[in-house]
Amino acid sequence: MLKAPDHQVAGHRAQAGKLGPLIDDSGLFYKPLQNDERGTKEAAFYTSFSSNSKIPTYVRRFFPTFHGTQLLEASDGSGKHPHLVLQDIVANRLDPSVMDIKVGSRTWYPQASEDYIMKCLKKDRESTSLPLGFRISGLQTYESEKLGYWKPDKKVVQDFTLEDVKLTLKRFVSSNPSSNAEPDCLLASKIYGGSDGILTQLLMLKAWFEDQTIYQFYSCSILMVYEKEAVGEEGHRSRSGAEVKLVDFAHVVDGEGVIDHNFLGGLCSLIKFVSDILVSSTNGSKTEGDLKERPVEI
Amino acid sequence: MLKAPDHQVAGHRAQAGKLGPLIDDSGLFYKPLQNDERGTKEAAFYTSFSSNSKIPTYVRRFFPTFHGTQLLEASDGSGKHPHLVLQDIVANRLDPSVMDIKVGSRTWYPQASEDYIMKCLKKDRESTSLPLGFRISGLQTYESEKLGYWKPDKKVVQDFTLEDVKLTLKRFVSSNPSSNAEPDCLLASKIYGGSDGILTQLLMLKAWFEDQTIYQFYSCSILMVYEKEAVGEEGHRSRSGAEVKLVDFAHVVDGEGVIDHNFLGGLCSLIKFVSDILVSSTNGSKTEGDLKERPVEI
Repeated sequence: MLKAPDHQVAGHRAQAGKLGPLIDDSGLFYKPLQNDERGTKEAAFYTSFSSNSKIPTYVRRFFPTFHGTQLLEASDGSGKHPHLVLQDIVANRLDPSVMDIKVGSRTWYPQASEDYIMKCLKKDRESTSLPLGFRISGLQTYESEKLGYWKPDKKVVQDFTLEDVKLTLKRFVSSNPSSNAEPDCLLASKIYGGSDGILTQLLMLKAWFEDQTIYQFYSCSILMVYEKEAVGEEGHRSRSGAEVKLVDFAHVVDGEGVIDHNFLGGLCSLIKFVSDILVSSTNGSKTEGDLKERPVEI
Repeated sequence: MLKAPDHQVAGHRAQAGKLGPLIDDSGLFYKPLQNDERGTKEAAFYTSFSSNSKIPTYVRRFFPTFHGTQLLEASDGSGKHPHLVLQDIVANRLDPSVMDIKVGSRTWYPQASEDYIMKCLKKDRESTSLPLGFRISGLQTYESEKLGYWKPDKKVVQDFTLEDVKLTLKRFVSSNPSSNAEPDCLLASKIYGGSDGILTQLLMLKAWFEDQTIYQFYSCSILMVYEKEAVGEEGHRSRSGAEVKLVDFAHVVDGEGVIDHNFLGGLCSLIKFVSDILVSSTNGSKTEGDLKERPVEI
């Protein structure tokens, strides 16, 4: 049985009369192909990417697995519609915290139509894309069984300023995200930090973007996902499942022998924010490791 | 005695009726302050930068030394005019080869006037700034005593395509720059390569730009300079004096806690081109080092 995803934080939602993505219970995510050029482009990207032997193995993990396209009953009731069949990134995850970050200070590509360029330029200037090199498109952070998710409204997220973005990146790894108090960043060292945490994964992506000239990823998003419950499991193997994935490839164009400096610049900006949060949260609080490594100061 | 610089490759030139920079024979470069906001901004930048204790020592070498401002007889004959007093980067250099590269896919900053933004955006789209993240503003490459400099006309440089930029970065380190033949890249390993060559210096700059949030450098240029004669001096200490400098700070704005992802992206794109030339030129030809290090293949 297909249904609308529970943990979608950005983009069109499937509902009566509205075309949106669907999931099944086998871990697949069905994304309707947009009717215009965008649908064709995204399908072409997944096909090209999945069969391109020049993509290093360490890079493939950052992309959802592609299982072809399939004709399915569309969520808007309009009948059969072609869908991309993709890996459902949050399948089998317990209360996943998810953030969708659109990367690049410029979401338009030189070959686009003048109308499209002007529309994008306006959005980029009105959002944090221009000053920060990225904008948050949506998020949810699991707080507790009682409080559930902190999931700011779409309109609120759209109006995020530079300061809001900084704060939200802190709240995303805090035990008190919905509070007006200073975010405690209690989960920062386990989610952003660590040998396979978000920062390490972003740095791996960066290394690829410094070199690859195959694609330019306009208007593409980075998803950051983790599970709070897993983080806290004392005594067990603590696996937060912190994961970075790239999604939304409807505006990917040929690299033409040039690195994607627009994506790379935004990625470096995001890395700097995440890294600063990590540094200040580990400096500010004594972690277990600190206490072991040096005598307690009196 | 003041005179117009011999080795200027971009920007306004000092001549009768025209305001432009001047040099003296003590190694100083006098840059007239532009009358509008730009002049004030550039002077403010040099003042702030030269006294900022947060600038690491390894970064200062990439900026011309600043010696204050001075009222001087202007080159256009209009009387006394304030000038920035700077280090003349090519002073005492023998037949310097120079390239001026304006870095960043976007030369405008969000706070600028709408007219200015539209003018810059048009130029960025018409040049390689948008696709490459940088554009060549001018260059001269010393070829030989007989042929002198290869110095393509300003109009020609303005119309450079992606392929022209690739070719020009090769010609810049070739012994046959003015020829229509394939550039031989004979100087690449000594100018772009080496422990203190251009690539190493660009990577040092990159490290700073990944971290610094003090300034945003819009419409700023990287100068690459070297001396061919020095390169060829067999038996002597071979010093090409390959040097990277940043110049033109009339559009520097406050970093506001964000890295300059626009400059950084363009810098990474330039690094990729330089690095590719270096790799292909050292792979393609057997250098002396190669021959010494392993037995000659038969």
